[in-house]
Amino acid sequence: MSSSDIFIGETIGTAVLILLGGGVCAAVTLKRSKAKDAGWLAITFGWGFAVLTGAYLAGGVSGAHLNPAVTLGLAIEGGTKWSDVPIYLGSQLLGAMIGAFLVWVAYMGQFKAHLTDPEILAAQPVEEGMVDQKAAPSAGPVLGIFSTGPEIRNYVQNVLTEVIATVVLVLAILTQGLNDGGNGLGTLGALITALVVVGIGLSLGGPTGYAINPVRDLGPRIVHSLLPLPNKGSSDWTYAWVPIVGPLIGGAIAGGLYNVAFK
Amino acid sequence: MSSSDIFIGETIGTAVLILLGGGVCAAVTLKRSKAKDAGWLAITFGWGFAVLTGAYLAGGVSGAHLNPAVTLGLAIEGGTKWSDVPIYLGSQLLGAMIGAFLVWVAYMGQFKAHLTDPEILAAQPVEEGMVDQKAAPSAGPVLGIFSTGPEIRNYVQNVLTEVIATVVLVLAILTQGLNDGGNGLGTLGALITALVVVGIGLSLGGPTGYAINPVRDLGPRIVHSLLPLPNKGSSDWTYAWVPIVGPLIGGAIAGGLYNVAFK
Amino acid sequence: MSSSDIFIGETIGTAVLILLGGGVCAAVTLKRSKAKDAGWLAITFGWGFAVLTGAYLAGGVSGAHLNPAVTLGLAIEGGTKWSDVPIYLGSQLLGAMIGAFLVWVAYMGQFKAHLTDPEILAAQPVEEGMVDQKAAPSAGPVLGIFSTGPEIRNYVQNVLTEVIATVVLVLAILTQGLNDGGNGLGTLGALITALVVVGIGLSLGGPTGYAINPVRDLGPRIVHSLLPLPNKGSSDWTYAWVPIVGPLIGGAIAGGLYNVAFK
Amino acid sequence: MSSSDIFIGETIGTAVLILLGGGVCAAVTLKRSKAKDAGWLAITFGWGFAVLTGAYLAGGVSGAHLNPAVTLGLAIEGGTKWSDVPIYLGSQLLGAMIGAFLVWVAYMGQFKAHLTDPEILAAQPVEEGMVDQKAAPSAGPVLGIFSTGPEIRNYVQNVLTEVIATVVLVLAILTQGLNDGGNGLGTLGALITALVVVGIGLSLGGPTGYAINPVRDLGPRIVHSLLPLPNKGSSDWTYAWVPIVGPLIGGAIAGGLYNVAFK
Repeated sequence: MSSSDIFIGETIGTAVLILLGGGVCAAVTLKRSKAKDAGWLAITFGWGFAVLTGAYLAGGVSGAHLNPAVTLGLAIEGGTKWSDVPIYLGSQLLGAMIGAFLVWVAYMGQFKAHLTDPEILAAQPVEEGMVDQKAAPSAGPVLGIFSTGPEIRNYVQNVLTEVIATVVLVLAILTQGLNDGGNGLGTLGALITALVVVGIGLSLGGPTGYAINPVRDLGPRIVHSLLPLPNKGSSDWTYAWVPIVGPLIGGAIAGGLYNVAFK
Repeated sequence: MSSSDIFIGETIGTAVLILLGGGVCAAVTLKRSKAKDAGWLAITFGWGFAVLTGAYLAGGVSGAHLNPAVTLGLAIEGGTKWSDVPIYLGSQLLGAMIGAFLVWVAYMGQFKAHLTDPEILAAQPVEEGMVDQKAAPSAGPVLGIFSTGPEIRNYVQNVLTEVIATVVLVLAILTQGLNDGGNGLGTLGALITALVVVGIGLSLGGPTGYAINPVRDLGPRIVHSLLPLPNKGSSDWTYAWVPIVGPLIGGAIAGGLYNVAFK
Repeated sequence: MSSSDIFIGETIGTAVLILLGGGVCAAVTLKRSKAKDAGWLAITFGWGFAVLTGAYLAGGVSGAHLNPAVTLGLAIEGGTKWSDVPIYLGSQLLGAMIGAFLVWVAYMGQFKAHLTDPEILAAQPVEEGMVDQKAAPSAGPVLGIFSTGPEIRNYVQNVLTEVIATVVLVLAILTQGLNDGGNGLGTLGALITALVVVGIGLSLGGPTGYAINPVRDLGPRIVHSLLPLPNKGSSDWTYAWVPIVGPLIGGAIAGGLYNVAFK
Repeated sequence: MSSSDIFIGETIGTAVLILLGGGVCAAVTLKRSKAKDAGWLAITFGWGFAVLTGAYLAGGVSGAHLNPAVTLGLAIEGGTKWSDVPIYLGSQLLGAMIGAFLVWVAYMGQFKAHLTDPEILAAQPVEEGMVDQKAAPSAGPVLGIFSTGPEIRNYVQNVLTEVIATVVLVLAILTQGLNDGGNGLGTLGALITALVVVGIGLSLGGPTGYAINPVRDLGPRIVHSLLPLPNKGSSDWTYAWVPIVGPLIGGAIAGGLYNVAFK
């Protein structure tokens, strides 16, 4: 697999992943969206089919990692060369930023209507539980469309939840025989992975919003901090390390566990 | 593939697509339907399985484009002959009109009950945001069963949203190797495409209702304007160009992008 | 395929279809069920996966028709011998009755709690629209767990809706090449058919509850009339012909249309 | 298949099954989870995709029984050696306990917030119908995240419901030809089984919460009794035999029925 294949596949695939994944969060969150308040099931299926679409598009080009935790797990397992890792990670971050920007393009009228609504701005809830935690910036009213955040800010639990969820994800991806030519997700594999992601969201998304992918959180958070949105509030950078570190640990554990138990 | 195969496959396939797609909108909208208020998830899965059924029926006959944006993308990519494009488009529009008519047949009692209910007619909401937009006809109370409409009428955003969503759709269809014999959707391909459409609906349907298909909007809009429904209101022809132009631009971009990046 | 294979496959397959299909109606309807009021999406997915399970079990044995409308369509198409039709239909009716009986076994405590609850019995709604229709017996409070009924009792529309929905179903089943060895549903075919049934339910189930299968309605209706349930009310036999005649017409149209257009 | 393959596959697979299955119950139940009150459809899809993930991970290693009722059915059918049964069962129970423990790790902040909330503790409902039943300990406020419990405590019905639901499950698994190399679930088979489990949940989960698997109930119940959760209440051991005995009877019936009817 050439570097340019990796670059094209991972950039486009991750862009689509984040466009559709961030899109469903915009769709259920923003004022004057037809999907407003469509609920948690809509969010989890939306993210699952975002994975399906991104993986399907990129599968034959770059193997469709779309996620540094997957790339790390595959490098440990041996299906991906360590020398290819930087190009994977850079493309994924770039793609995630493009995807987050496109969410804003597709929903720009809704963002404006939402962020200039006096009722919505006044109702911004104080985060419960913050009193006995380290000082944390109050997350902005649309940050959840870009990045994840914890319901209870407890970094030990937050990291553990992300680790556990990512182990499940990466183990499932490794199992589907990514070493077959290094080509990654076949058609049915993309579907299974997508439904596994729906399952992880339904089952383990409650505490932190299941980043399970460093660039899925970091890329859109950067875009949130850059976009000139009115009243957008904080980008909550103090939490930003959790959805990077947790998934990377999870990917590494999954790669090691796969080598020990499944080979 | 013969012209008569294209005609039969596209007409029947698009008719089924619109029958089931328009059907789910009728089901959740109309008074005295068992599915009344079943929600956005029902709508998006309903449209997705409408695509599945139409694509499955027409796949082996015409390649199951069912959508001028798909036909355009395939013509640019080279999988469909430009000389076949007119027969594809004509059949698709005819099928869409037949499908919309069958929605009315299946729900005729519900249409009548809904459109003669004084409470429903009185409650017809004034479209928010219209005051600072170009004068637009107030859409009729059942037009949403036939055609799409924007939550915020801003033609620049509306077109962009349709372009972005259609690029995702057509890119996914091109990826599944439609050039293999020109036969279009295989069985698993039809399923993946259907779930991609569910995903697009969940993620990008919020602003405009995701036409992502010119005939999906135009065919039913023509039928809405022709059907002798009482109190049906305007067919909102001033918006009609958006779900034609946006998806066609999207299909063209996807075709070009595929040629540049994926070949 | 031997007569005993047909008998075993169709009886067990249809029993499972109706056990799970009737089961989801019991689950969302009855007092003191964990799934009470789970909504239309639960009902439509429940019936879809009921089809999946029944078709999957019976596919390799009898071809998994599970539905006289399917058998009729296949006989017209040529994939099933006319001499086998009686054994198909008898087994399907027997299976449907067994399935409906098992729903009662699985939910017997819930049936009793529901049918002896004074509030539920008092709240039994008068069927709207009945005043300008032919006299019809008021359907019992749990009949909807067994059989279908119209939201608006208009036999012309009711039959048309069932015809249209059944044409879609049978055409989809014929398309998947049932003439390949007469073996019926392959694994992926069973999944596609199941999701098509979810789609038909979401899109065309609003007016009549989508019987789309004569024995799915008749078998459970017989069981409803026989079971010694307290306060069970009428079995609404005046409607019983609609979900028999409509689906049979639909199956015949689909068989003919397939021969003309798809062969 | 070696004993160590069985041990590794069943332990990891069942741990993931219970992690995701218990996880979705935690997600929709606990205070300060993003998925709170996501509803029955979320629970049933969550458990279905838990089966998908566990079966997918373990399929190529141990055949992915993950359930003593499946192992029993396969032993009766002949696809699994009786001498392997103890190692299957032991690994499954161990895996189930690990999975339940990991649910607590992932949701520990939510457990604490929930179990120390005065309103939640006060609102603990008295189980209806208990007055005319044998004395039963009132189940604790989070026991439903670990183990199943009946809506109406009637052991005859409770066992019958579990038997019926398990027969459907095991019959579906046997049908997919587990005797092909004893390798169990292929990729598509895992998906079908997962959706069958969603269907069983939607259709037959109403009365008892569909254990359909002895270790799915027993393993987490043991963990509930061991975990030092504040105010956790009873582990309801008087009910614990039902979800063991019912599924085992169901698995045995399915194995016998398969031998008689499907071979």
